[in-house]
Amino acid sequence: MYTEKVMDHFQHPRNMGEIENASGVGTVGNAKCGDIMRIYLDIDDNGIINDVKFKTFGCGAAVATSSMATELVKGKHISEAMQVTNKAVMEALDGLPPVKVHCSLLAEEAIHAALWDYAEKH
Amino acid sequence: MYTEKVMDHFQHPRNMGEIENASGVGTVGNAKCGDIMRIYLDIDDNGIINDVKFKTFGCGAAVATSSMATELVKGKHISEAMQVTNKAVMEALDGLPPVKVHCSLLAEEAIHAALWDYAEKH
Ligand code: FES
Repeated sequence: MYTEKVMDHFQHPRNMGEIENASGVGTVGNAKCGDIMRIYLDIDDNGIINDVKFKTFGCGAAVATSSMATELVKGKHISEAMQVTNKAVMEALDGLPPVKVHCSLLAEEAIHAALWDYAEKH
Repeated sequence: MYTEKVMDHFQHPRNMGEIENASGVGTVGNAKCGDIMRIYLDIDDNGIINDVKFKTFGCGAAVATSSMATELVKGKHISEAMQVTNKAVMEALDGLPPVKVHCSLLAEEAIHAALWDYAEKH
């Protein structure tokens, strides 16, 4: 049912945790399943995402997609990070079952919300 | 949104893992969200559940309810364990948001499936 990469990122999630005094924080909820996710971004003066962490109450697919999404935006400029879609994240994970696609939206939306939070503060 | 007990069992899940050569194993899937759960039971000759472990791809509510459900059946006789309902589990967790009640069914169904698996073998 799940690809090797999904199981790997679910069992060994990258960048799980919190960042104190983060440059941007985004919290989103998923109407379909009621799950929640929070992304923390640490952004330097050049607009580079130096660090990123996530926390979620969501399922294994939410954990795996957040883990991969945070890997994809880490070290990137905020303008590049803005373009990381849930489609790109799912491709990097070699796919997700259709019933789980809504879970992958949590990561994308939370990253956008955190970038928005950063933009509002600057 | 979530009670203290739910957050405690989500962040520090009890009895997560596997049991090799378990007396009974139950695997169930949740049609509503596509999540899966597996329960392992170690049952002695007197029908007492000496050990129980769970694994899930489900969300925080599934983790918390499984953690509590395994605590409730541990040390019990199989006939008592059969009567642990998801309602009892939710009450022990001081409640769950309505949108998450279906997640709690995974634990109850997986325990019943594992008890059934044990009964079939004996
Ligand atoms: S079912 Fe809610 S995040 Fe996957």
